Amino acid sequence: MSEPIASFRFAVNVTPKPGILDPQGRAVEGSLGHLGIEGVHDIHVGRRIELTVEAADEGAALAVVERLAGELLSNPLIEAFAIERLTETSDR
Amino acid sequence: MSEPIASFRFAVNVTPKPGILDPQGRAVEGSLGHLGIEGVHDIHVGRRIELTVEAADEGAALAVVERLAGELLSNPLIEAFAIERLTETSDR
Repeated sequence: MSEPIASFRFAVNVTPKPGILDPQGRAVEGSLGHLGIEGVHDIHVGRRIELTVEAADEGAALAVVERLAGELLSNPLIEAFAIERLTETSDR
Repeated sequence: MSEPIASFRFAVNVTPKPGILDPQGRAVEGSLGHLGIEGVHDIHVGRRIELTVEAADEGAALAVVERLAGELLSNPLIEAFAIERLTETSDR
């Protein structure tokens, strides 16, 4: 008895929580002057992880991604994450 | 004569180009076994930058973000970027 398996592609966006130090964001802001760019602010730099999950259905795949995002891909003390379902095929 | 100015929030997703070494992606894949997670693959780790642009209209704001993404936020030799318009307000 074999369970049908499908591929689901997701992105996990990990960003510093509000109030948490964001040195990369400050570095980008500090570089704007060199490019002569004005009017850009509130820059936050985080990570984006794209991945493919094999699962019986999208709900099961999402559960795997949620566990990964909370336990491996982010530090819940200082970072927040958001999960996106990507429609691109996973044959990249 | 003053030009009306509005705030537009964007995200820039920067990911390694296909075929480019992605050591962080490999590290995440190597850690899956410790969590007992199977069926996850094609992991790519990149950066996500969120920012607010003050501009006369969305087109002008997008032009600023495109320049920033190509000149400061990504290395065009080894990274690709995609720009997202965020609907969240910028008063974070």
